This record gives sequence, C-alpha cells and structure tokens, in this order.
Amino acid sequence: MAGAPESNLAAVVHTSQGDYRALVGRGLIAHLGDEARNAGLRGKAFLIADEAVFRVCVRQVQESMEAAGFETHVLVLQSGETTKNLDKIRDIYAWLARLRAERQDVVLAVGGGVMGDAAGFAAATYRRGVPFIQVPTTLASMVDASLGGKVAVNLPEGKNLVGAFHQPKLVLSDIDTLKTLPDREMAAGWAEAIKHGLIMDPELLSTFETEADRLLGLKDDLAVDVIRRSVGIKAKVVSSDEFETGDTRVLLNYGHTIGHALESVSEYGQFLHGEAVSIGMMGAARICRDLGLISDELIDRQRALLERYKLPTSAPGMDVNAVFEATKSDKKSAGGVIRWVVLEGSGKSSTRNDVPDDIVRSAIASLVGFRN
Amino acid sequence: MAGAPESNLAAVVHTSQGDYRALVGRGLIAHLGDEARNAGLRGKAFLIADEAVFRVCVRQVQESMEAAGFETHVLVLQSGETTKNLDKIRDIYAWLARLRAERQDVVLAVGGGVMGDAAGFAAATYRRGVPFIQVPTTLASMVDASLGGKVAVNLPEGKNLVGAFHQPKLVLSDIDTLKTLPDREMAAGWAEAIKHGLIMDPELLSTFETEADRLLGLKDDLAVDVIRRSVGIKAKVVSSDEFETGDTRVLLNYGHTIGHALESVSEYGQFLHGEAVSIGMMGAARICRDLGLISDELIDRQRALLERYKLPTSAPGMDVNAVFEATKSDKKSAGGVIRWVVLEGSGKSSTRNDVPDDIVRSAIASLVGFRN
Repeated sequence: MAGAPESNLAAVVHTSQGDYRALVGRGLIAHLGDEARNAGLRGKAFLIADEAVFRVCVRQVQESMEAAGFETHVLVLQSGETTKNLDKIRDIYAWLARLRAERQDVVLAVGGGVMGDAAGFAAATYRRGVPFIQVPTTLASMVDASLGGKVAVNLPEGKNLVGAFHQPKLVLSDIDTLKTLPDREMAAGWAEAIKHGLIMDPELLSTFETEADRLLGLKDDLAVDVIRRSVGIKAKVVSSDEFETGDTRVLLNYGHTIGHALESVSEYGQFLHGEAVSIGMMGAARICRDLGLISDELIDRQRALLERYKLPTSAPGMDVNAVFEATKSDKKSAGGVIRWVVLEGSGKSSTRNDVPDDIVRSAIASLVGFRN
Repeated sequence: MAGAPESNLAAVVHTSQGDYRALVGRGLIAHLGDEARNAGLRGKAFLIADEAVFRVCVRQVQESMEAAGFETHVLVLQSGETTKNLDKIRDIYAWLARLRAERQDVVLAVGGGVMGDAAGFAAATYRRGVPFIQVPTTLASMVDASLGGKVAVNLPEGKNLVGAFHQPKLVLSDIDTLKTLPDREMAAGWAEAIKHGLIMDPELLSTFETEADRLLGLKDDLAVDVIRRSVGIKAKVVSSDEFETGDTRVLLNYGHTIGHALESVSEYGQFLHGEAVSIGMMGAARICRDLGLISDELIDRQRALLERYKLPTSAPGMDVNAVFEATKSDKKSAGGVIRWVVLEGSGKSSTRNDVPDDIVRSAIASLVGFRN
C-alpha cells in the first residue's frame, strides 16, 4: 500500500526486535492504516486512547485503521502520571482478554508519554508481547517517549520501576494533533527537543535560538522539519544503544538527574516532566561550569533559550536537602554512584561519575533561590 | 572460578539475550555461586524460594552464592498455580524495591515451575529486566519449565495470559533436590521428559521403556543421564525457535491442547500439569490414529509407558463438551484455528491445523470413559 510520502520519514530505527519507521508530518493519521499494513501487521487493532485526546482524533485513527482492513476496538483511559500504575495495566489486560486479543493483533497507544508507557507495557506483557504502534499526540512524546521501546509503570516505591524494552512496529507523529495541546505541554515538549540540540547537535541548537518565532506557533513547515530532526537524533541514539548498556543512550538523560529529583520531591504534582528537565538542565549546566567544562556564557545561552520557549529555569522554594537526597535514588545510579550527563560545549556531551557532593548541592541551591 | 564439572553440562542454550548453560547433576548447588560468577553476574543475589522447598536446600543455595561473594536476601513465598497472579508479582516488586535491587543484581528462583514463572516475570519487568537464574527443584521444572525463557502469570481471564520471554543466565538442576519430591510430582515430571522422547527422540523413548526400574528410583546414574538428555532436547528446541515463531517449539505442546482444557475445566484443582499432559497425550495419540498417522500399537505403547511411570491416561467423569469447548480457547490457537501437535511415528512429530471437530470430540470421549 502507498503509506505516507517518504518526506515524512524521520528515521528507520534499528532494534533487536526488528526495524521500524518513525514518521513526522502533517495529516499523517490518514496514512496510519496503510503504514501499519506495510509494517506487516494483520489481525485486530486495539486502540488505547488518553481521554485528553480529542475524540475526533481517536475517530480518525480508528477510521484509518478500518480503511486498511483492521477490525478495531477502542478503550479510553484516564491518564496522568499518578495513574500510570499496575491497576491501569490490569484494566488493559482484562479488556484485551475479554475481547480475546491474540498474539498477532496490534495495540495502538494514542496519547502522550504516560499512555504510551502504560499501553506499551501492557502490549509488552500480554501474551508475552503483542505488536504495538505509537501514535503520540504530545510534542514530548513525539520527540522523546514514543521512541526507543522503553515502556514502564510506577510502583508506590518509585517511578518507572516496572517496565520492559518493547519496540514499536511504527511510530507515527501527526503534527496536526498538536493544535489543541495546552501551552504548558507544548513547552515541556520543546524542552526535550532542545535537549537533543544541547547534547549532540549544535546546528539544531542554533536553529532553536534563531528561529524561535517561526517554531513556537507551529504554523511554519520549519517547525515540522525541526521536530523531525529532533526525532531523528533520538532515533539514532536508541538505534546505537538499544538497552542503554553503552555510553550513548544515557546522554539523553541530560538534566534528568535533578529533574527526576524535583519531580519526586514535589510528588509529581508541580512540574510537567519537561519542565523539571528544563530546570534540571540549568542545574546540570551549573555543575558543568563548576567542573570547568563549560563557560558562564553557555549557561546564559541555555537559560535564554529555555526561557524563550516558555520553560522554567528555577524552582524557587524547593528544599535543597530533599532534592539533593532524591538525586541519590535516581535510577541511573549504578552501584550507588550517580552517572551525571555533562555538557562539554555547545552540542557536545559526555558522562561523569565523580561529581563531588558539594558541587551538586551548590547547583541545586542555585536553582531554588539560595545562590552561593 | 572452577564451576561444576563439565560432565554436568546438558546444553548451552543460544538466545537473542545471550547464551546460557543448563546443568544437570548431583550436588550441583555447591557450584552455583561459582557458576553465577562465570556467567558474568555481580551485585546482590535475591533468592525467591517456594515455601515447599526444604529450608536446608534454600540455605545451601544461599551459602553457595555467599561463598562466591554475593550478598544475599531471601523471600519465601507460598506457591501453587492459583497464587501465580499479579498480586504475588506486586509482593516481589515491593520486596525488590524496598531492598533497592538494581539492574545488575540477580534474581534466583528456587522451586518448581510456578515459582520460576512468577520470579522470572518479576525479574523480566523489574527495572525493565534484571538478570535471572533458575534453580528448579521439581523434575517438571528441570526438564521443561525452567528452560526457554518463558515466564508468566495468570489472569482471572486465563492462564499464563501475561508474561515475557526473559532468558535466564543459568539453569542449574541439582538432582539431589528431588529426593524429597512427592511421588505425584515426580510422575508429572516424567510426563514431560517422556514427551520429549515421543516427539523427537526414539532412542530416549526406548530407554524410558526398557530401563523404567532403574530410572524410577533416581538412585542410578542412568536417571541423571536421562534427565540431562531430556533437558538437552528442550534446550535444542528453544535454541532453534526462541520466540515460538517457527515450527519447532510448538512441538513441545504435544498433549497440551487437551491437557490445558482438562486443567481449565477442572479449575486447576484436580490434575498436576504433567498429569493433564499425560492424559492429553493419550487424546492426541487417538487423534493421530484417527487421522491415519499412527497405529493402535503406538497408542498402546504410549499408554503402557505412561502407566509404568505412574501417570494417569484417562479422566473418567469429565464433561466431554466442556473439555471440547475449552480446547477452542487454547492459547496456541491463532486466528481461531487450533494447531494440533501430532505424532507421525515413534519419536517423530509435526503439526496439523485441520483436525475435524468430530475427531477431537471422539478422542476426548475416549478419555472420559464414553468410548465410541
């Protein structure tokens, strides 16, 4: 079948479970069914949609799949980080089992990162794994969460403690679905896209700086190109380091150690993930400067850029000790040592596991308002 | 480190997640810690043991790991098919999270197939997968469940509906742990071992027939050799068809379509899995004869062999219609068609998806006492 025009292809992601296409463009949902067929999928389609997604969009997904010959079923679930738990997974299992979903059927996640994680984990484990398609409808999910096969749910004991690597068969990002996305969520998505520039693409970083006006409204085709390029970076990284056992994929966690700590201390009620990452990147940049890796000028450049994209760069009033302690339980720690992602310049990053506690404390203090 | 003598090696299993050794012998637990080191494992060891396993055996496992330098923790859980559910998995997750188990730590399952499935599924999904060792202590688990990476739990809607392919780093079967195994459980294990002979090893099948006296008591070294050979067959099959997408692994389900149906209709309270498989193999053999694939003589030979190993070969009083309907929901069905594993002779098998309903009904009727 025809599928989407090849100009929409952001990347072909290579994985041990097979290759898949990541598409970014406008009006792509119309091609979803054909793309699913081209990816070799048959059987029934089980759509799991975030209730926050507009019904007309869910209906378009359904129509596209049906036009390509898939029988479809739809489950609409409440979303949100606090509901990304095993109870939701049980609900999905029960729905799939009741409808007798089989191994060759396909689960589609329609929504943001939380929905992709939950539906993806259910798909990873129902009947030991059924095929899975990501249809991200938030910018953050398009440029980050939907790619790379990481799926997970939270335990009372911690975030994303349970999960799997379950590679999608297709990731289709239709920019038209972003029209109705709230401003705060758009900004949170830009944080991850900008992060890709900061850690490994100086040219993309520069485009974010010089073309902010054209990008922010999403009206210009440049916005689609930039999102596609950001997706391409993530795709390249996860292709080269599928299971995060190498030294590449960890770089995507720039800003995440302090970001996760901020989310944890605020009990996931105060910041969107991208907002916490934005603040975390400011903390990380400060650490880089104190390690002698970058100049004040790059810190200021990063701050101006994040603020231009309406992102927070500080967390006034947060408890320094609590945030510091929370960094210690970051899941990227191994053997008790935290692996910090550091910038070595504009668009260049690496990791360090020898960052002194006082430098970390000082960086956190600079974020919460007690500068020293 | 030294590890176990190489004469105990049943097979090296090849998987997409790496190779692992399957060992079968006497007194092997003493070598467990060294074998774990040789498999590249470090970190802490989290032992999850079935409460039915003798404490002295659990203690030996712990001592062996500690002697090789692993810090150990032990969780003893109630076992049984009816408790192989998501609640048990939650308990394991909570225990691992409380003790801050990390990605490089190792989970050991000490017990039968149920414990291997539950602990294995927890290991497959905790932090997106942690290393895992199987220490089976039942014959059924040694020759079947512990090998091949299939782990699963039951849903209210069906058995093994949730699971993963999570390959162990090592499967160590110490025949000494079978000393205290109840007779019924030993027989259930022989059912799976004999099945391996029936489907693909005429010579092994013949040994089971001619050497029953030596094998049944487990006192003779021949018993260890035969178990090792049976493990080798399973290992070869799962190496060649890791994800059951080919035509080989499905052969291991000889007797399982009717077996699963018997278990389901009796609500998992009447038969051990191996017992249901034994009866199911008699039903399957009858189907093979009615399809013109084998002679009455092979059916009789199979019956005599199973009875010699104290296995049931009929299920008097079961409801034919209920069992027949239950075969339809067997998880090996694809697109609604049941894939029957059939014998084509002694030690030779294949699959058929065109078995007429009346032949299936007639085979089931022959098992429950209404011969026609």
